[in-house]
Amino acid sequence: MTSFPLDQANRIIEGAFAKAAALGLKPLGVSVLDTGGHLVAFQRQDGASFLRPQMSSGKAYAALAVGMGGRRVEAVAKERPHLTAGVSDLSGGRILPVVGGVLIRDGSGTVIGAVGISGDTSDNDEAAAIAGIEAAGLVADAG
Amino acid sequence: MTSFPLDQANRIIEGAFAKAAALGLKPLGVSVLDTGGHLVAFQRQDGASFLRPQMSSGKAYAALAVGMGGRRVEAVAKERPHLTAGVSDLSGGRILPVVGGVLIRDGSGTVIGAVGISGDTSDNDEAAAIAGIEAAGLVADAG
Amino acid sequence: MTSFPLDQANRIIEGAFAKAAALGLKPLGVSVLDTGGHLVAFQRQDGASFLRPQMSSGKAYAALAVGMGGRRVEAVAKERPHLTAGVSDLSGGRILPVVGGVLIRDGSGTVIGAVGISGDTSDNDEAAAIAGIEAAGLVADAG
Amino acid sequence: MTSFPLDQANRIIEGAFAKAAALGLKPLGVSVLDTGGHLVAFQRQDGASFLRPQMSSGKAYAALAVGMGGRRVEAVAKERPHLTAGVSDLSGGRILPVVGGVLIRDGSGTVIGAVGISGDTSDNDEAAAIAGIEAAGLVADAG
Repeated sequence: MTSFPLDQANRIIEGAFAKAAALGLKPLGVSVLDTGGHLVAFQRQDGASFLRPQMSSGKAYAALAVGMGGRRVEAVAKERPHLTAGVSDLSGGRILPVVGGVLIRDGSGTVIGAVGISGDTSDNDEAAAIAGIEAAGLVADAG
Repeated sequence: MTSFPLDQANRIIEGAFAKAAALGLKPLGVSVLDTGGHLVAFQRQDGASFLRPQMSSGKAYAALAVGMGGRRVEAVAKERPHLTAGVSDLSGGRILPVVGGVLIRDGSGTVIGAVGISGDTSDNDEAAAIAGIEAAGLVADAG
Repeated sequence: MTSFPLDQANRIIEGAFAKAAALGLKPLGVSVLDTGGHLVAFQRQDGASFLRPQMSSGKAYAALAVGMGGRRVEAVAKERPHLTAGVSDLSGGRILPVVGGVLIRDGSGTVIGAVGISGDTSDNDEAAAIAGIEAAGLVADAG
Repeated sequence: MTSFPLDQANRIIEGAFAKAAALGLKPLGVSVLDTGGHLVAFQRQDGASFLRPQMSSGKAYAALAVGMGGRRVEAVAKERPHLTAGVSDLSGGRILPVVGGVLIRDGSGTVIGAVGISGDTSDNDEAAAIAGIEAAGLVADAG
């Protein structure tokens, strides 16, 4: 069964936490999903609130479901809210259509997973996600 | 049991993919539904993201549920979002109220099914759907 | 984005229908899912009832969700019904835990997808699924 | 906000994987939940099927929801299936009432979280969970 490698997922989370520490961010939840939208690894820092698992996964899931980074996902949600509401319904309420979900691409540009982070501002969440992906030697596509 | 004939559904999908290739579209998911809103055939091209089954079906389902092509469905969603939200809830979250769901009519004008396509822009999705329906010798009603 | 190749999925469905014709089976619904449990292709033969999309997908989904062919999935459902009920709940009601869901393995034994068939007896559904997978040059694991 | 400490959760997962390697178990999904039933950390080993996040969390959630280790949870499910079905419904379908969910107690006997593991037999899943909890210097209550 092909999925996103666990050791790379852990490296991404480690890299995201390192960036968060450098920026002095609030406690984060970080989810790494494979291309099927399924969780590979998650970590919630002490003090992060309890819905961070769903919120971080929901950002990554939204990006994967439509094949766009969270920045474009959120732009669509503002322009065509009925479309985003429909996608949410179709997904069984699994998406969070905001900045902070970042596609993971390999060297050839193929989407191989996504990272979602929730806990600080959406912009800071995204910065930590990008840093984590790059720390693992992969390419971040924030949209 | 009256349903949409499978061989016509396959011809529609083939025609839609031919149009998509001619236009150089992104990978698509194409659903053909019978008048009861039930799936007859679906194909997802390599590289299309994982929610395309639900998104393409959701466009066709929306068109059939209210008897209007996707273009009018989306116009209603913009004008009366509460109405569309209600229809989505009533359908169990099965609709995607945007352009790209096209009713299939026979020679006498009777609705006999619908096609939904998702993967490129909504306008391009719709163009492929219309081409597929016409390739099967049927009448497309995009709304 | 890696998924199960559409041309192989179509070959599997064609092979399953050929077997069904040879055996004189009732009209079938055939679903091919990738390893993430997402639909790649579906076809419903004329006369098959309307829930066949969900029933065929549900067999394949169950096999993939727990990594066992449908025959073992159904055995577990008989021995530990509370476990199967729990898996169904956790999946959002997406599984049909019976014979007729068959894992697709490549030459090295890796699970690369699953086929689910519904329409005739479970044993006949399974026979058609196995024939379809083998017609595409792949390895069937019915459990 | 009181939650289970992330560094202890990671130590539990590490300990569970070490035990799994020693026993030669199949690829596992391991969830650590706080006393509120919320995810603190999850890791899915390469090759584990896609529903392992929900299945491992569902075992831990069930144990926490009723304050009993998974072994007693499964015994109740066999004796009074209607009770377990009701609890599942009340939880929004979040429980998997089988062996492999293990309560975490501190030195004074207080429940401070739970571990759920899914991927091998339920008995082996439980053995890895117990080993992980003990590796973190905590007390395992498998029921």
